[in-house]
Amino acid sequence: MINQTTILLLFSCIINVLFLIGLALFIAKKGGLSYLFKIFLNIGKKNKSNNFNYPPYYWHKKSQFEKLPKSELDIIMLGDSITDEGEWTELLGLNVKNRGISGDTTQRILHRLDTVLESNPKQIFLMIGINDLMNDGKSVTATLEQYKKILCELKEKTPNTKVFVQSVLPVNNKIYLCWQDNNNVLKLNFGLKNLTKEFNYEYIDIFYLLLDSENQLDAQYTVDGLHLNGEAYLVWKAVLEKYVVAPEA
Amino acid sequence: MINQTTILLLFSCIINVLFLIGLALFIAKKGGLSYLFKIFLNIGKKNKSNNFNYPPYYWHKKSQFEKLPKSELDIIMLGDSITDEGEWTELLGLNVKNRGISGDTTQRILHRLDTVLESNPKQIFLMIGINDLMNDGKSVTATLEQYKKILCELKEKTPNTKVFVQSVLPVNNKIYLCWQDNNNVLKLNFGLKNLTKEFNYEYIDIFYLLLDSENQLDAQYTVDGLHLNGEAYLVWKAVLEKYVVAPEA
Repeated sequence: MINQTTILLLFSCIINVLFLIGLALFIAKKGGLSYLFKIFLNIGKKNKSNNFNYPPYYWHKKSQFEKLPKSELDIIMLGDSITDEGEWTELLGLNVKNRGISGDTTQRILHRLDTVLESNPKQIFLMIGINDLMNDGKSVTATLEQYKKILCELKEKTPNTKVFVQSVLPVNNKIYLCWQDNNNVLKLNFGLKNLTKEFNYEYIDIFYLLLDSENQLDAQYTVDGLHLNGEAYLVWKAVLEKYVVAPEA
Repeated sequence: MINQTTILLLFSCIINVLFLIGLALFIAKKGGLSYLFKIFLNIGKKNKSNNFNYPPYYWHKKSQFEKLPKSELDIIMLGDSITDEGEWTELLGLNVKNRGISGDTTQRILHRLDTVLESNPKQIFLMIGINDLMNDGKSVTATLEQYKKILCELKEKTPNTKVFVQSVLPVNNKIYLCWQDNNNVLKLNFGLKNLTKEFNYEYIDIFYLLLDSENQLDAQYTVDGLHLNGEAYLVWKAVLEKYVVAPEA
């Protein structure tokens, strides 16, 4: 006899099947059984092979940076994806080296700072912090504390390097998939400006140059609301070239 | 009365609840409600804003490449993430420009080839194809057909440019999460070698230099089984510097 419970059971089973199909499609898209198998094999292994759980891209770039030739004339662009994606040597000149790594946070910069300091570079242009707020969900205060550690280490280990603290850039929340309050970015930048004074370094504001009238990253400069197109890099470059020391100097 | 149907219903409902919790956690990790909202808003929009559905990173880099200064002395490193992640100017010299875009396929290279050809560069070092096999699930034959289109366009539009076809690199299937048959890579490389002769270009084999004794990408060169660390770039550089023309030449 088909009673109410049986109908409910049928209904629930259909939903079970739909969920299972969804899961199967998701796994198939990721690479199927071999994906599951490798995930299974990798459980517990990750923390051993790379401490802090940083992604392979981080380790690959870090190891490359360690092997590249270094000079006291180096001008270092240090930061996350926003720095990483710029062709800085082409934008600013021969001595300018890209030391950005996509996904970097203040913690990850601290972890690889030694590689950068080794050569006592002439200048460092630093832009970091948005992933602290966005990916790590860190507070502005906690981000500033970590940032301070970076500046302390710079002051201590490479006192002759001219360090430029660049503002963190705005996000466009109408485009970007993970909402981030630009007021937090503004608060962070306010803190960074004060911190910069404290260390007697120079602060460079890029934030306002890329803003639209609604306090969002201007849509003319971005496709995804977070990263920058060529036009934005030209705006940024126009500011930095006033600070960058020519190779002859 | 609790009969068998009721027990099954209870069981089925529990599984559904578990699935729902899993889904909720997944969405929460991706950014919560605002993530869902944006996905909903973006349905159907994607194909309009960027045709071919290429990711923002592609459009950002392409637009930057369009805006950067060009010269007939340019030496162009053209390819996907394996090229993109190398600091080529630092490895090989001032005129060497990185025109790699992570995730690129033969199709995506074709789509942005004009930006590269515009200046009639001195040399082009091309490495592309692994994402055709891996991400697009394209056959070796179909990949070679697309590759041929790239070489045709190069021959036609910039006949004085010296083009170097580089072998596609092996993958390490013991590390990499998405299995790829290195025999397919070998077949592709065999085809590429013949294609290169056909066009009177030069073929450069990097494949064998990075291979271990089990025909996998040597674990000493990679963390994820697909991309390269600094050591691998030094091996690759040592080969290329025999071909790269010095700026004075």
